[in-house]
Amino acid sequence: MKAVIKAAAVPGLELRTVADPVPAEGEVILKILSTSLCGTDSHIYQWDNWAQQRIHPPRILGHEMYGEIVAVAKGVTTVQVGDRVAAESHVTCGKCFQCRTGNAHVCKNYKIMGIDRDGSFAEYVALPEQVCWKTAPEIPSDLACLQESLGNSVHAVLTEDVTGHTILVTGCGPTGLFAIAVARTAGAATIFATDISEYRLELARRVGADLAFNPQKADPSVILDQTSGEGVDAALEMSGHPTSIHMCFKYVKNAGRVVLFGIPSANVALDVANEIIFKGIRVHGITGRRLFETWYRLGGLFRAGLDIRPILTHTLPLEEFDKGFDLIHSGQCGKVVMIP
Amino acid sequence: MKAVIKAAAVPGLELRTVADPVPAEGEVILKILSTSLCGTDSHIYQWDNWAQQRIHPPRILGHEMYGEIVAVAKGVTTVQVGDRVAAESHVTCGKCFQCRTGNAHVCKNYKIMGIDRDGSFAEYVALPEQVCWKTAPEIPSDLACLQESLGNSVHAVLTEDVTGHTILVTGCGPTGLFAIAVARTAGAATIFATDISEYRLELARRVGADLAFNPQKADPSVILDQTSGEGVDAALEMSGHPTSIHMCFKYVKNAGRVVLFGIPSANVALDVANEIIFKGIRVHGITGRRLFETWYRLGGLFRAGLDIRPILTHTLPLEEFDKGFDLIHSGQCGKVVMIP
Amino acid sequence: MKAVIKAAAVPGLELRTVADPVPAEGEVILKILSTSLCGTDSHIYQWDNWAQQRIHPPRILGHEMYGEIVAVAKGVTTVQVGDRVAAESHVTCGKCFQCRTGNAHVCKNYKIMGIDRDGSFAEYVALPEQVCWKTAPEIPSDLACLQESLGNSVHAVLTEDVTGHTILVTGCGPTGLFAIAVARTAGAATIFATDISEYRLELARRVGADLAFNPQKADPSVILDQTSGEGVDAALEMSGHPTSIHMCFKYVKNAGRVVLFGIPSANVALDVANEIIFKGIRVHGITGRRLFETWYRLGGLFRAGLDIRPILTHTLPLEEFDKGFDLIHSGQCGKVVMIP
Amino acid sequence: MKAVIKAAAVPGLELRTVADPVPAEGEVILKILSTSLCGTDSHIYQWDNWAQQRIHPPRILGHEMYGEIVAVAKGVTTVQVGDRVAAESHVTCGKCFQCRTGNAHVCKNYKIMGIDRDGSFAEYVALPEQVCWKTAPEIPSDLACLQESLGNSVHAVLTEDVTGHTILVTGCGPTGLFAIAVARTAGAATIFATDISEYRLELARRVGADLAFNPQKADPSVILDQTSGEGVDAALEMSGHPTSIHMCFKYVKNAGRVVLFGIPSANVALDVANEIIFKGIRVHGITGRRLFETWYRLGGLFRAGLDIRPILTHTLPLEEFDKGFDLIHSGQCGKVVMIP
Repeated sequence: MKAVIKAAAVPGLELRTVADPVPAEGEVILKILSTSLCGTDSHIYQWDNWAQQRIHPPRILGHEMYGEIVAVAKGVTTVQVGDRVAAESHVTCGKCFQCRTGNAHVCKNYKIMGIDRDGSFAEYVALPEQVCWKTAPEIPSDLACLQESLGNSVHAVLTEDVTGHTILVTGCGPTGLFAIAVARTAGAATIFATDISEYRLELARRVGADLAFNPQKADPSVILDQTSGEGVDAALEMSGHPTSIHMCFKYVKNAGRVVLFGIPSANVALDVANEIIFKGIRVHGITGRRLFETWYRLGGLFRAGLDIRPILTHTLPLEEFDKGFDLIHSGQCGKVVMIP
Repeated sequence: MKAVIKAAAVPGLELRTVADPVPAEGEVILKILSTSLCGTDSHIYQWDNWAQQRIHPPRILGHEMYGEIVAVAKGVTTVQVGDRVAAESHVTCGKCFQCRTGNAHVCKNYKIMGIDRDGSFAEYVALPEQVCWKTAPEIPSDLACLQESLGNSVHAVLTEDVTGHTILVTGCGPTGLFAIAVARTAGAATIFATDISEYRLELARRVGADLAFNPQKADPSVILDQTSGEGVDAALEMSGHPTSIHMCFKYVKNAGRVVLFGIPSANVALDVANEIIFKGIRVHGITGRRLFETWYRLGGLFRAGLDIRPILTHTLPLEEFDKGFDLIHSGQCGKVVMIP
Repeated sequence: MKAVIKAAAVPGLELRTVADPVPAEGEVILKILSTSLCGTDSHIYQWDNWAQQRIHPPRILGHEMYGEIVAVAKGVTTVQVGDRVAAESHVTCGKCFQCRTGNAHVCKNYKIMGIDRDGSFAEYVALPEQVCWKTAPEIPSDLACLQESLGNSVHAVLTEDVTGHTILVTGCGPTGLFAIAVARTAGAATIFATDISEYRLELARRVGADLAFNPQKADPSVILDQTSGEGVDAALEMSGHPTSIHMCFKYVKNAGRVVLFGIPSANVALDVANEIIFKGIRVHGITGRRLFETWYRLGGLFRAGLDIRPILTHTLPLEEFDKGFDLIHSGQCGKVVMIP
Repeated sequence: MKAVIKAAAVPGLELRTVADPVPAEGEVILKILSTSLCGTDSHIYQWDNWAQQRIHPPRILGHEMYGEIVAVAKGVTTVQVGDRVAAESHVTCGKCFQCRTGNAHVCKNYKIMGIDRDGSFAEYVALPEQVCWKTAPEIPSDLACLQESLGNSVHAVLTEDVTGHTILVTGCGPTGLFAIAVARTAGAATIFATDISEYRLELARRVGADLAFNPQKADPSVILDQTSGEGVDAALEMSGHPTSIHMCFKYVKNAGRVVLFGIPSANVALDVANEIIFKGIRVHGITGRRLFETWYRLGGLFRAGLDIRPILTHTLPLEEFDKGFDLIHSGQCGKVVMIP
């Protein structure tokens, strides 16, 4: 089969013909119908410090996927050939304290598709049964692979109830855009969004931000003006930029909450006293998706009318993966989906 | 001023001319712009057993109100003449355990407007400052008086997060209809609604129920069919009917929740083992509005697009209060608003 | 091996010699060191209506157990020969909605040891790896089998935080006594306990009840006297008796919580309006143990000093099971442990 | 009356004779029976930068107090002459969003006794009725003034349930010591405590720490050794030192929580990705006491057996305030109480 592979410890990726995957006991073979690019893939493409430590070539990339099951190995009982499924990308151990107490999303031994084992930038992938997520046929094939990424935002937004609450989303990359769309569907009162890219601010408005602005050009204190001087009930940090992190702490109201999802590239000097303690706030560190509560909620959000179509801005054949990464590096895109 | 008054311990109400109210220290005078009928008023009108125990005539009825402040007494600091406000109907003591621990909605000493002191079925009413709720000018005057009643439903629906959840609402009287509208705005996945009145089922569909049906005519097990056999995440009982209460316990999923708001007229024989214990569910008894969290959430829901207009089916001059109660007794109405 | 078995669909049990169990893939063989009697076993012994519907003889009874692993089948990875373990008695499916969202204790497909498959009233039992709970060597062997039963009470008591709270426990059978001991260790402010057996009230006092009384002889309103007229923060119903259920609803404070664990033998007529709705309380239906959070908490409670020794009142050889059931029927006991 | 006063904008305090306080409407006069020193008082004594910005001399210091009401002004209804009360030190506005939604501890307009108005280092103090906390006569007079300070720790420890949980407390000053005592009473499984003062580590052991150590001398990884490699469920930061803050983030388990109470004197550079996000933890900023839930819980903890006597290490006459501050600066003390 054809696959996009990190063949050696150098920047870039290659399209190669490789052997078809063979499923182990308890695994299935998924024929990929759609697979999307993530910032993590971009780090591996560019071969930055993090990637050099984490990835052991050769490795087929890709952890956001949707497809049809074409084979099942011994021991598989919950899915069958013909099922259309997305995949939870974290293969958890099921045995650690976290897995046994409802917090498998921070399993200490998890393996990630496309990083610790071969992923979905290919025609086929082998997948443990436990991570298959049957997807309602109403979800279009090209959007269905986005559920893994969307799930991060669902987890972040719904950490606490947002209905009727004022929300700030800093960073309008794909997870920020998903967060806005989810908060809109969830009945947030007012959604503020910030980014420095006008392209992405426009997307933010399309998916439901009430006020999307570039904080380098407009004064963020408009947030106070529009919240009776209170600030927001919840600030969702989806960018990883220190300026945005501080903005979240500044504009969250006393007794509110800050949700941290974006990964900073370096340490951040926080005024712990004034940014956290005296405000009496909660800070939630968010990673991955709650297994599998987030996936169920995500299915419910689609039924509630969640529309993520505007966030899928580009669809490419698998062969044009280089173009996909160029788009991501340019920032002039939402999600980029590839079709093998 | 003119006022609708329970003048004596007999059925019915009378329109009378009475003295204008005089505000005590810390109180304001509200000129009523709109006031709505509630099931409680209907009990008092009919003078049933409950009303005979609870009401001491003469009493001006009415606890759902909106108006303009036309006078403020000594000690008032947070509102002023000209403010347009709705009123929380429960005047709480501020000193009991519940009031001091964030649960003033179950204050053990609260007084209710229109029951324990004169209410809003009049041109003017005296109101303690603490229960005035400044209302955004975007809320139309005739809808603004409905906030008190709507608040019950906001409290009931948002007891736990409903976003992406499946919901059953039993009883499509006004609080049931409000509950459906709130759940819709909050991003509920699927909303089932039941009533025996086709008029109210049609209203339920208009405000967002996905499937509204008469359980005497259609088999409620459709709820299981449409929830993968699970039942709903949350069942909201808004009718007080034993059949509906049992339906909530039957169709809530294991580990789900039942919210009880409707008041049964007699004891209900529950199969505590199978309806509650073995299902591992939570049951929430809901009364009133959380002070004042529910009111803030309610304001946020309006900004999120909550539309309760379809639920206001009749508007009458105050003088036609008898017609209003006839409508309520007929069941061919949503909310009935009176304009003094 | 020798085993206590329900050999036929008639009252009573028999001691028989049966074939040693053979472990399936993923299972272990446990040599039983201690096993305790539960009310459920008593129902099966007496062969009441429930038992006749539920049990398909022949069946080895027993679901509360502790022992040493003497053999492991293929696929077992988390325990090994020589490990000393107790057992979670509910073998859950791992695939249903509840299992996948952290609520496996209400798995819709669970099998119970000693009911749906052979149990621990024997020298050996076959046990799925997933339900083995490694037990700290500090826990004495005769107490270690009580963890399953104790876990019910840990689950019930810690549904919400009890530290500094006033508590009522109705019913001082073993799970009630465990609940008292747990609440005491958890720093409950005042623990009221009721039962009609003076033997059990005395045990209640020994494990930490501040005021244990027979409500047929003493006026329960002493609870109000000793709580500033408020009632308790949490009422834990551990008996299943209607009188006790009503007592819980009566003496819980507004905005408090009632935890229902005891199984009534018939429907209970509740005054839903006054017992639940107007009090604004939460009612928690509790069954089993949260998997495996309750087990971790239970281990932590032992380290915190939880002492359940007084609740183990009788230890018998397995052969004297009839004497054990006689004790349970008499009510003159706490827990009864058998040693094969 | 005599009072300890910051008479001018210079270091130190003075004992002076001043006019007796006169209560405003809604206030009482408290005859001080005991009053304790806090770190905040020490900052004002030393006249550091913070104090110079915050305090406007002349000001009588003192916000931890206990005494007997000797006069009540007009409008007081909930306390009377002869009542013995402690005082909540934060006088909240009752009108802001936080006050109206159960979060008055982060009221945006609160005034602090002994900082914004005259305090308790005197024979008498005027006190708004709302902050009087009737104290059970069982609480000894010299301990009763410690409740305000203890309340901070109760708030911090009980932010989430600690029963059966492993706990790390960094910093064994008075609030750290109180936290240890509270966690012990609440049934924490294992309590680790760190400080660099052997005097305070010894106090930590006396009030219930299982393992109290100086992290400059002993390797903190002992925490992992004793928690199966997991780390603790909750890390409570009570020192404000950056090293301790990082220790909390390092030794909290995935999906655990960090409670920040100690105030750092400068910004802290956090590795937000690895310390918060990838661990999936919650961080709680804690200040003051929940009004008045914390006070009720505190009363319940005393009934549960909470013993804070070992933490009160020095009792002095008011005149020896200089000696009290010397003790605080030396670190060779727990709490220091003064008797006027």
